[in-house]
Amino acid sequence: MFKINDGISRVNCSDVMKHVNRKITLCGWVHRVRHLGRITFLQLRDRSGIIQCVLENELAEMKLSLESVISVQGLVVKTMKTDTGVEVIVDKLQVLNTANAPLPIELNQKELDVHMDTLLNNRVLSLRNHKEHLMFNIKSAIVDAFSSFLRNEDFIQIFTPKIVAAGAEGGANLFSIDYFNQPAYLGQSPQFYKQMMVAAGYERVFEVAPVYRAEEHATSRHLNEYISLDLEMGFVFSSKELMELEENLLRFIFNTIRDGYQKELQEVGVTIPLIERIPSISLHEAKQILAHEYHKSTSEMEDLDPEGERLICQYFSEKENSELVFITHYPKTVRPMYAKPLENHSLYTDSFDLLFKGIEITTGGLRIHDYQELITSIEENHLKVADFESYTNVFKYGMPPHGGLAIGLERLTAKIMNRPNVRFASAFPRDRHRLTP
Amino acid sequence: MFKINDGISRVNCSDVMKHVNRKITLCGWVHRVRHLGRITFLQLRDRSGIIQCVLENELAEMKLSLESVISVQGLVVKTMKTDTGVEVIVDKLQVLNTANAPLPIELNQKELDVHMDTLLNNRVLSLRNHKEHLMFNIKSAIVDAFSSFLRNEDFIQIFTPKIVAAGAEGGANLFSIDYFNQPAYLGQSPQFYKQMMVAAGYERVFEVAPVYRAEEHATSRHLNEYISLDLEMGFVFSSKELMELEENLLRFIFNTIRDGYQKELQEVGVTIPLIERIPSISLHEAKQILAHEYHKSTSEMEDLDPEGERLICQYFSEKENSELVFITHYPKTVRPMYAKPLENHSLYTDSFDLLFKGIEITTGGLRIHDYQELITSIEENHLKVADFESYTNVFKYGMPPHGGLAIGLERLTAKIMNRPNVRFASAFPRDRHRLTP
Repeated sequence: MFKINDGISRVNCSDVMKHVNRKITLCGWVHRVRHLGRITFLQLRDRSGIIQCVLENELAEMKLSLESVISVQGLVVKTMKTDTGVEVIVDKLQVLNTANAPLPIELNQKELDVHMDTLLNNRVLSLRNHKEHLMFNIKSAIVDAFSSFLRNEDFIQIFTPKIVAAGAEGGANLFSIDYFNQPAYLGQSPQFYKQMMVAAGYERVFEVAPVYRAEEHATSRHLNEYISLDLEMGFVFSSKELMELEENLLRFIFNTIRDGYQKELQEVGVTIPLIERIPSISLHEAKQILAHEYHKSTSEMEDLDPEGERLICQYFSEKENSELVFITHYPKTVRPMYAKPLENHSLYTDSFDLLFKGIEITTGGLRIHDYQELITSIEENHLKVADFESYTNVFKYGMPPHGGLAIGLERLTAKIMNRPNVRFASAFPRDRHRLTP
Repeated sequence: MFKINDGISRVNCSDVMKHVNRKITLCGWVHRVRHLGRITFLQLRDRSGIIQCVLENELAEMKLSLESVISVQGLVVKTMKTDTGVEVIVDKLQVLNTANAPLPIELNQKELDVHMDTLLNNRVLSLRNHKEHLMFNIKSAIVDAFSSFLRNEDFIQIFTPKIVAAGAEGGANLFSIDYFNQPAYLGQSPQFYKQMMVAAGYERVFEVAPVYRAEEHATSRHLNEYISLDLEMGFVFSSKELMELEENLLRFIFNTIRDGYQKELQEVGVTIPLIERIPSISLHEAKQILAHEYHKSTSEMEDLDPEGERLICQYFSEKENSELVFITHYPKTVRPMYAKPLENHSLYTDSFDLLFKGIEITTGGLRIHDYQELITSIEENHLKVADFESYTNVFKYGMPPHGGLAIGLERLTAKIMNRPNVRFASAFPRDRHRLTP
């Protein structure tokens, strides 16, 4: 049992100012130490913030290595000399775990001055730096807001298997597993399963779970394991309904973060965009903008490339003051076999992407709900109908018209925090070369 | 676009009684059809419930196969003849998707009279049955309550990789993956990563994510992929603190479900236990109870077997009216290398299990936080220190005293719903023989 505590409850650093002239216990990490003759100023850091502690007499002479874990007990006094307006005059200090010195990276700076690989190799240490730390508080808050918004719209959270017998997109880029001597794969997306849960009568479902892409490229926008925020709903008759839902959903997420992390975001210089109306253009119009404004020509039946996405976002940021833009009317050739063609425009699908600060963060749209239409589409995509039987069978017995979307959590988080690489938004990223920590 | 709607918004079945004498639109599945000469009674089911619709004249003669997806428009009228007190006199009906007849299983019964394998093979259909359906509403509600409670206690939600370089328990029962020609595995537990996130200064973290166990047995209590509700917290000095947290957490979860699903749970005959104080006994005491009350002898340094767990639960249900019981003081020999030994009882660990209705639903406890102690423990467990470097390195630089626990979501859900097999609580279970749907 903890000896130093003397029955005095632990207080978080952010709450110390509520305890002026009272004795408190603090627990945390040694953030900075300044010896000044017979007095030592120690900055103690916990999950909530940093508090200055004053060590006098014998305590002032203790050797405390940076990042050691300690507990102190002392009196809270007012002072003009700290940002918080208080400091703690320590009368007991216990080292709970000594940290090795020197540290492999210098932590108590505003920005970590290290290469991304060094930052990721020393992930647990680098996450203690304020700016890096905040990323995962925000990521958690995004998921909370996503889930709360959807539960409020009568969605339930589902959990679908990640060990699967076939891929959602038709076989490419799958990691294979030895599953009791049967071939199996890691799911690329919960697409089929979320559709099946709509068919199972839940109508409105969401999932927050990892997806796996065995893509060999090593770009700033790809991870081989990432978290997909998926939703799917029944009795939807147009992509417009889904885009409206996503606009409201993102507005809720952005407002929640802006309100909840005002001070922290200000400290790291991040502004959360205000969402009014997200502009929407067709892929054809996007290509016209690229041609006329940026002299960039692209083929009519292809998707935008990363540079195209970046330029379209630049255009809408400058001309319409919007960091977000929907792109619609994707040709069937660039969409998966389950994408529903537009009525009266059978070469195009009733689907959309959402771009945010230069990158695609969402793909969504209506799905084919008619069994025969789905089988024909699988054949047209040169896939084997037999490979998809446990999915397609469901369409024989009452599949409602439906649609949905998926948001890449790390892309959204990294872009909100203005970081140039999606790896910064993964605590322990997995890429072609990185399997540890 | 949907033609039948005429601008009249869709109403959920559960809300129809609020629209007496008004025209509404309903969307859903054909649950039951009764032709009575020139009138047809159609029960329409959506995610919220079932409403009786009345078809007259030509509409009465429509052939509607069960489970077809339809939309109807009509006038809500009061009636004494239905449970809901209302019915809808239909003037338009549109079939959105015809279901094949006959169905492979009969759905509109109170209980599905089919073998578990048939139920799981036809999962999307069987989930439309009311009793099966409710399971996943409850599972979603449990996760919501778990997350809400912990966020309120200042925990953040984390997402750790499931593709890993080594197993948490030391190498057994792992699924292997080909990861770009490197050997890799599916994570058995987020144990190491949640500890690392505590060390990263978040202090209080939780995760809701799949874990993978390549166990060959096919019992009613094991899945090869299941959802683990994990939490881990820093500055914890005794398992008692964790057990107290779990007691409050489960009380919150149980109360939330009881309040939120009163009517539904009553319909399927499920009562949610009231949690006052969860009794706690040592493993030694549990074995004495087994010996004296049930004449079951067990070896001193071993864990309880499934029959032992069942009998201990029976005992506490009968004697103390508690469906839950904590077991403490597990010997080091049955706990993993990271379990912290009890002060002054170095053969035992400061850890616990929680049993619920005959089955272990939680393992938790304090973890070793001292680097050297951890290395020694790894060696004593005959594991290779080098295999755990990216985990153990973290302990050199300021790891606080900490502990945590994990709850098996499917076990908890199945037990709450009084179902005898954990597979019923997995939408698409994975076991040795089941990789689809």
